[in-house]
Amino acid sequence: MARAGKKILNDPRKVVHEMLEGLVLANDGKITKLSHHDAIVRSDLPQSKVAILIGGGSGHEPLFHGFVGRNMGDGAACGGVFAAPSPDTIYEAGKAVHRGRGILFLYGNYAGDAMNFDMGAELLNEDGIEVRTVRVSDDVAAAPPERMHDRRGIAGDLLLIKIAGGAASELDTLEDVERVVKKANAQTRSMGVAVAAGSIPETGKLTFELAEDEIEIGMGAHGEAGISRQKLTSADDITDQMLGRILPDLPFASGDEVALLINNLGSTTMMEMLIVNRRVRQILDERGIKVYRTDVGTWVTTQEMAGLSITLMKLDSELKYYLDLPAESLGYSRT
Amino acid sequence: MARAGKKILNDPRKVVHEMLEGLVLANDGKITKLSHHDAIVRSDLPQSKVAILIGGGSGHEPLFHGFVGRNMGDGAACGGVFAAPSPDTIYEAGKAVHRGRGILFLYGNYAGDAMNFDMGAELLNEDGIEVRTVRVSDDVAAAPPERMHDRRGIAGDLLLIKIAGGAASELDTLEDVERVVKKANAQTRSMGVAVAAGSIPETGKLTFELAEDEIEIGMGAHGEAGISRQKLTSADDITDQMLGRILPDLPFASGDEVALLINNLGSTTMMEMLIVNRRVRQILDERGIKVYRTDVGTWVTTQEMAGLSITLMKLDSELKYYLDLPAESLGYSRT
Repeated sequence: MARAGKKILNDPRKVVHEMLEGLVLANDGKITKLSHHDAIVRSDLPQSKVAILIGGGSGHEPLFHGFVGRNMGDGAACGGVFAAPSPDTIYEAGKAVHRGRGILFLYGNYAGDAMNFDMGAELLNEDGIEVRTVRVSDDVAAAPPERMHDRRGIAGDLLLIKIAGGAASELDTLEDVERVVKKANAQTRSMGVAVAAGSIPETGKLTFELAEDEIEIGMGAHGEAGISRQKLTSADDITDQMLGRILPDLPFASGDEVALLINNLGSTTMMEMLIVNRRVRQILDERGIKVYRTDVGTWVTTQEMAGLSITLMKLDSELKYYLDLPAESLGYSRT
Repeated sequence: MARAGKKILNDPRKVVHEMLEGLVLANDGKITKLSHHDAIVRSDLPQSKVAILIGGGSGHEPLFHGFVGRNMGDGAACGGVFAAPSPDTIYEAGKAVHRGRGILFLYGNYAGDAMNFDMGAELLNEDGIEVRTVRVSDDVAAAPPERMHDRRGIAGDLLLIKIAGGAASELDTLEDVERVVKKANAQTRSMGVAVAAGSIPETGKLTFELAEDEIEIGMGAHGEAGISRQKLTSADDITDQMLGRILPDLPFASGDEVALLINNLGSTTMMEMLIVNRRVRQILDERGIKVYRTDVGTWVTTQEMAGLSITLMKLDSELKYYLDLPAESLGYSRT
């Protein structure tokens, strides 16, 4: 049963363009695409609010462009598959979302994205538009704790976008929104496990190679090296290893309250994620860590890659408040 | 990159049990599991409402047990993987959800489910509890239109559960709720396309065989024969073929308003679904059929099967009203 490259597509060179057309239509008028750029903006963006611009490479749907909506991102700048959006696209998206109170750029911490978003910010600054930046860096497998700024962003993106969207709907200044989102990023830790590769839509090629009986714990979204390649073992053992890295990293301690996110990297079943959730809760209970809210689903993917990630965010009353606001987007809605 | 059977599990014989434990924990107190049965019930079920009991085989997550919550199902009776729940479990789940106004049973139209839910209904009747039944039968590939009662239920389940949950929160009698849900089922049509098989968690075996360059249009959720096995072709061509069967079946006609659902059967990417959505909208626009709301996501799966389904429900003002009510469950939430 070969799956790699066997996808329901038209012209493989036009996947991003056609996907964005489909995305705008699926939002039934709530999202507008810029005419000459792969960027989308909320159609009903309120006046005089801090704007949240998210974005990055395509191919990780519903991240990022599926997370544009009420109390989520205000716009998204979209690159090609696994490629950063261009500075020009970021600049145009920035102008389109700006409502007079500055823009928070929020995206995963990858070198190409950082470079291009910084160039986009410079262009906006020249127009007198203020930009602040938070780079999501939740992947504990990517670098040791003392090098947080070298860590990649993975599924923590979703929780940070939700908090940023909530904060920007209630707070008046860019500084305040930036402060909340920076705090949320500082308190978020994730790790993934890869079971099988996804494939690149333009070429059908796999993003990495794993033997039939192997998994890799800590592998990045694009096949970046993790912390341990090993034989496939039990869900409980895998979960123990992942939390064994995540919990001491912040560290999460007895009495903490957390948001828990279990994210499907592409083709892992909800059955597997729920079985992992069972073990996560056993461990957190033992440690006296209380789960305030749980999300289990498909949000930050790498095409049809098999595997999942676990994210914990340590909460305080401010983060709880923004996390609990209703949110509405094609890829993530909560009452 | 073998994927079949390579899953993050513990004891393969305990997948349903462990999954339900994880599910209850992920619902953070909003869902309770019955002590001796694989059935779950809302913890905060309001008094004196018509109850909605859903259920069926496991392995199609988040359907069914992920759709228990506010304005969704009130409880779910869960079978083994791809197996109907037992009459006993259905009976106990029925007693647990009943709030004095009768129960609507809502499940996919499969022989095993029909038999066991009917037996469960008889047991409840003996206790003086009234039960009505709607069997979801949206799969146009399963039987010709004159044999609607032989059609299987596929992704239409989600829209019907949402409408049933909404109707049961506002209507006082079982008869009224049944009438709305029957109407919704009569106006719903779906078709799927299979690209690659999923695997059975207990055995690792594939659910069907498809050649490397083949797809099957109309294939059922468990590998039931479809209407055409053919070479993999373009997204537009596949969409044309599927709508070519769906549209004339009701028929959907110019001036109609519809709810549109594009559902991932397991490991198909959101990119593919959005590209299909683009073509669906081109065709519906040409036909003068207006899309009132769109959902694109992962709701009715067959493990990691690759493929997708398209569902259209013809709406009137009553169906729109119930579809638009907020809903909250682990697998599907809308503001």
